[in-house]
Amino acid sequence: MGNCIQGCKDYFSRQKNTNIRLTLPVVCFVWQIAMIILFGVFIRYDEESDTHWVETKAHDNITSDIENDFYFRYPSFQDVHVMIFVGFGFLMTFLKRYSFGAVGFNFLVASFGLQWALLMQGWFHSLDPQTGKIFIGVESLINADFCVAGCLIAYGAVLGKVSPVQLLVMTLFGVTLFAVEEYIILNLLHARDAGGSMVIHTFGGYYGLTISWVLYRPNLNQSKRMQGSVYHSDIFAMIGTLFLWMFWPSFNSAITDHGDGQHRAAINTYLCLASTVLTTVAISSLSQKTGKLDMVHIQNSTLAGGVALGTAAEFMISPYGALIVGFFCGIISTMGYIFISPFLEKTLKIQDTCGIHNLHAMPGVIGGIVGAITAAAASESVYGKGDMGRIEGDVPEGEGLKLTLSPLFTGSILRLPIWGDPADENCFDDEVYWELPDEEEEHQESIPPILEYNNHMIHKQQDL
Amino acid sequence: MGNCIQGCKDYFSRQKNTNIRLTLPVVCFVWQIAMIILFGVFIRYDEESDTHWVETKAHDNITSDIENDFYFRYPSFQDVHVMIFVGFGFLMTFLKRYSFGAVGFNFLVASFGLQWALLMQGWFHSLDPQTGKIFIGVESLINADFCVAGCLIAYGAVLGKVSPVQLLVMTLFGVTLFAVEEYIILNLLHARDAGGSMVIHTFGGYYGLTISWVLYRPNLNQSKRMQGSVYHSDIFAMIGTLFLWMFWPSFNSAITDHGDGQHRAAINTYLCLASTVLTTVAISSLSQKTGKLDMVHIQNSTLAGGVALGTAAEFMISPYGALIVGFFCGIISTMGYIFISPFLEKTLKIQDTCGIHNLHAMPGVIGGIVGAITAAAASESVYGKGDMGRIEGDVPEGEGLKLTLSPLFTGSILRLPIWGDPADENCFDDEVYWELPDEEEEHQESIPPILEYNNHMIHKQQDL
Amino acid sequence: MGNCIQGCKDYFSRQKNTNIRLTLPVVCFVWQIAMIILFGVFIRYDEESDTHWVETKAHDNITSDIENDFYFRYPSFQDVHVMIFVGFGFLMTFLKRYSFGAVGFNFLVASFGLQWALLMQGWFHSLDPQTGKIFIGVESLINADFCVAGCLIAYGAVLGKVSPVQLLVMTLFGVTLFAVEEYIILNLLHARDAGGSMVIHTFGGYYGLTISWVLYRPNLNQSKRMQGSVYHSDIFAMIGTLFLWMFWPSFNSAITDHGDGQHRAAINTYLCLASTVLTTVAISSLSQKTGKLDMVHIQNSTLAGGVALGTAAEFMISPYGALIVGFFCGIISTMGYIFISPFLEKTLKIQDTCGIHNLHAMPGVIGGIVGAITAAAASESVYGKGDMGRIEGDVPEGEGLKLTLSPLFTGSILRLPIWGDPADENCFDDEVYWELPDEEEEHQESIPPILEYNNHMIHKQQDL
Repeated sequence: MGNCIQGCKDYFSRQKNTNIRLTLPVVCFVWQIAMIILFGVFIRYDEESDTHWVETKAHDNITSDIENDFYFRYPSFQDVHVMIFVGFGFLMTFLKRYSFGAVGFNFLVASFGLQWALLMQGWFHSLDPQTGKIFIGVESLINADFCVAGCLIAYGAVLGKVSPVQLLVMTLFGVTLFAVEEYIILNLLHARDAGGSMVIHTFGGYYGLTISWVLYRPNLNQSKRMQGSVYHSDIFAMIGTLFLWMFWPSFNSAITDHGDGQHRAAINTYLCLASTVLTTVAISSLSQKTGKLDMVHIQNSTLAGGVALGTAAEFMISPYGALIVGFFCGIISTMGYIFISPFLEKTLKIQDTCGIHNLHAMPGVIGGIVGAITAAAASESVYGKGDMGRIEGDVPEGEGLKLTLSPLFTGSILRLPIWGDPADENCFDDEVYWELPDEEEEHQESIPPILEYNNHMIHKQQDL
Repeated sequence: MGNCIQGCKDYFSRQKNTNIRLTLPVVCFVWQIAMIILFGVFIRYDEESDTHWVETKAHDNITSDIENDFYFRYPSFQDVHVMIFVGFGFLMTFLKRYSFGAVGFNFLVASFGLQWALLMQGWFHSLDPQTGKIFIGVESLINADFCVAGCLIAYGAVLGKVSPVQLLVMTLFGVTLFAVEEYIILNLLHARDAGGSMVIHTFGGYYGLTISWVLYRPNLNQSKRMQGSVYHSDIFAMIGTLFLWMFWPSFNSAITDHGDGQHRAAINTYLCLASTVLTTVAISSLSQKTGKLDMVHIQNSTLAGGVALGTAAEFMISPYGALIVGFFCGIISTMGYIFISPFLEKTLKIQDTCGIHNLHAMPGVIGGIVGAITAAAASESVYGKGDMGRIEGDVPEGEGLKLTLSPLFTGSILRLPIWGDPADENCFDDEVYWELPDEEEEHQESIPPILEYNNHMIHKQQDL
Repeated sequence: MGNCIQGCKDYFSRQKNTNIRLTLPVVCFVWQIAMIILFGVFIRYDEESDTHWVETKAHDNITSDIENDFYFRYPSFQDVHVMIFVGFGFLMTFLKRYSFGAVGFNFLVASFGLQWALLMQGWFHSLDPQTGKIFIGVESLINADFCVAGCLIAYGAVLGKVSPVQLLVMTLFGVTLFAVEEYIILNLLHARDAGGSMVIHTFGGYYGLTISWVLYRPNLNQSKRMQGSVYHSDIFAMIGTLFLWMFWPSFNSAITDHGDGQHRAAINTYLCLASTVLTTVAISSLSQKTGKLDMVHIQNSTLAGGVALGTAAEFMISPYGALIVGFFCGIISTMGYIFISPFLEKTLKIQDTCGIHNLHAMPGVIGGIVGAITAAAASESVYGKGDMGRIEGDVPEGEGLKLTLSPLFTGSILRLPIWGDPADENCFDDEVYWELPDEEEEHQESIPPILEYNNHMIHKQQDL
């Protein structure tokens, strides 16, 4: 009895305060009100979503409403939107008891992030100097979703180890940093990165990994029992995988040039991803004694091709070129899960819950290199006169220092003991931040009556 | 022993006859045959889906097939279609043992409803006076799906408490009523309501609530053990939530004007819904002692912004205006789940399984008010000359009496003892209308062998 | 004790070698490399996805990028893509312990199949005689997905009974055969079959059934305990059903003529499928004593209308004609599950796991007949002058022999003992080819502490 009380004391002394009843509502309310004010000051409809479009059409000699950019990009936008909310959200539901957190916090973070992204990207890329306003249309929505993708990738590294308030802070800094980094790469270095290999995936990957490194938990094995998947949670995760995989052609083609640009980007991504699946399966099967497949690989590495083709998707990489990129990405990403992830955790003290290093960071770097090679190989005969001017940027190399210091700073802020993050033994457990359904009743139903009788009998025997 | 027999007798006397082997097939067959006959008499392809489109094009000086309305609206139509079947269907799977009924009856009801809606809406809105025919195209399909949405909202109020035959009857009357109500609001009062705040959501909400009131079950707590969710069912429900949330911009823009109208409606809804998520999370967290989130709120209240922007989505409400609408809807809807739903059940005797009052009825009313304010504030300078004429309607206020008597009538019909509805203790249980998989074997597998041995041992001990 | 050892021996002697660590990686690597080489030699971007599109436009007097075929077909393509990967994949997750195999092998097979299909269809249909190249665009991707659909249908017949290597071999031969068959039907017989009633569904159905017949397992009841569904797996399967059902209008309209052709095909399929749902429910309810519904029927037969309208979807079948087709398909397909499937298994020795005979093969045949009747009834007054020339093909009758011998050959190859297929008692079990999550811990958690104590007590008693 005394032992039990001592155990309880130990338990509660180890407990962290995960009460977020003050911080979470305050952050949500204050930030949302700030968004409303800033939108009121800065954001307006662009000329294609404004009622004055009728005059714009007349002025530009456009004969049909179908030439509104909406019709070029809206189907792709909706696919990207599905990737952000269902794709990323469900991909992270693989943990046996963190599916609420995976899909729910993903939802919260993305909803805030896309508003903040519209502002940050607007200020950096499209602030009208005359009016001081940001004019938004469907392409702005796509870019906001892209920016959010970077933050959700970072979430993958710290999944289950942070509170929703920390995630919102991570997103606030992440979107800010993203806009700066994107400005450097696209506007100062004049690189093209329509599908965001570097801008989105490498950035999001290393941002998340750096934060995870700062937040290193040496005693994370105390929640080891919660770190695996169960059969059904793996199938939920496949919903995320497949929607990401299927709609990646839309992701890489959503903001490319009208006409052949979008067309080609979709074809290349489609082919590249098909190739990735085969090599992922091959390596996954090779890694086990009897050739069994590992769901972690199938859920994640099959997507690496889409990441790596982000930069080059719109280029004339040619169909077989796309297949080659996918071929190697499947191999490298799966190998990453087998060899690099354990190394990162043991040696570099980086705990990467979803293995974003293998799915986003590494393939993103490959994507930058592939883009650089393809751009360098581009000649006027391949691209024709009309398009040549567009592919002249270089892949950025430096600028790393400034950008890596920022996540360190963000990570340090997140270490403050005010965010309600879980104790080591409570990681990966929805119990901490969610009202969970009471499933006791069901469990009792599943116990056959005879066993309940047993209990009764044994108690009686004890009494005797 | 005698006690047990008495209990069994009581049990079976309370049992209602839920055999629907006669009624369900008869209703399905007869109504489907009626649809075929009525379609044969009335429904034809419109000029854009008929082979004579080639002549229409020539006549209207249309140079390209891409200007067929199909290409303006088909992507939005497919998104709406997903909302109807996966969105509404899976949103209702949250109950631990009514997921078959949720997704299956949703499927049945929507499939019948859309056929009947094409006829009813056709008769009221687009019956060609010369030929006596209804000409349908992609916009008709969207409108039919919209009409079905109203009936599925009503299903949410009575989920788990009615038989599929009752649902079909509810849908028959619901669609009829919907067409009348829509005619009054849109054609007589000249209001605009592209996303259906009033026409779809308020109507569907109060239609369902009235029926639920008529069908009040004082002893519903007898099936209390079935009324909750389990961990996995809550994740299934999130599939519904997210597809509704993501595709709501398509819902609100699907039948707005080509060009800037569709463009603006999508942007406004996108922003509004993002704002709703933050305030929903804030209030949900505030409502619990330790700030934990409640899945019911996340699954439902996050969608209230889309409902409330239905009327005003195409107006020049401006981006920050959309955020403000979302801001308040998240608060009001979540508060509704916390305070109003218990009040409705206890005081007004309205049992609202899915809380449609908080998700559809109330936000729909807000949407009507927002629409009225935005329309009133519209000036020629904002809308330009071209569009001014379109926004002159008023939000309807009266006409309530006629429309509320009809659901009372429908409810009374549903109280007849011929529809095979479940007894109070069998509500929310798929067992009643579905052949369920036999899961005993699996349960036995999950009992470790040693326990089975125990059973054996104890039996032996008893025998001694 | 000796008995137990003997049992274990028997068990292991019956065990087949399911080690695929050599074959699966080799097949994946070699075939993927072959794809890369063949793509390098043959596949190029077509004129609408090439950078030279700017010149093509000028040459063809196209004024806007929106007339690129991409914008006519990409939304439909993405819907078809979802059907292939989520639709077919999740439809097959209904088995209690084969969901990994269903969705995972579907993913693998489709990813290989679409590459091989681009080549095979290219060689047969669009090899440019001058350059010896195949030029691909978005329509090629749709056709590749269609071809893959045929192979995935065949997978449904052998689900749970074959190894992933066998599936890849099946797909290699299936795609090859598909291209030949499609060439005969479309190019030699000049039939039109845009939605693939005959080309895709009947072909895929009988291809799979023939192979299943060759691979007949007389002792399959040894894995009977794995052949059913559990509650959650049936809901996962409904995800597949609904995405197939909702996007079928896109499937049947994806490659029809621009303008009214696509428009009409979508409307017809939408109506036809709605009608199918009602008659499926009616027959399913009739088939049970108390009118309960059977999930197998709802998951499968509701889709039969889409299959059967494949050929005629673009024709002027008229809205009520579409409803009639759906009406009968729901009846026939559900009856197939009730009466024909048991007959096929007992008498013809065809074990059809998913009942593809009722969902694809039979409705496909109906579709061919409906198409023939509709085409025959077509007159110039209905179709106008412009379109008349297009509907002149006949439904093929012969050619069956050559096409049925090929699956026999494929089946024979698959009987070789080198493919790592499972033993009879291991069929329908993911254990064989997948690393499954260790769920013991969870099970132990679900055992109330008192029971664990019981175990302890009883052991003690035994010792006494």
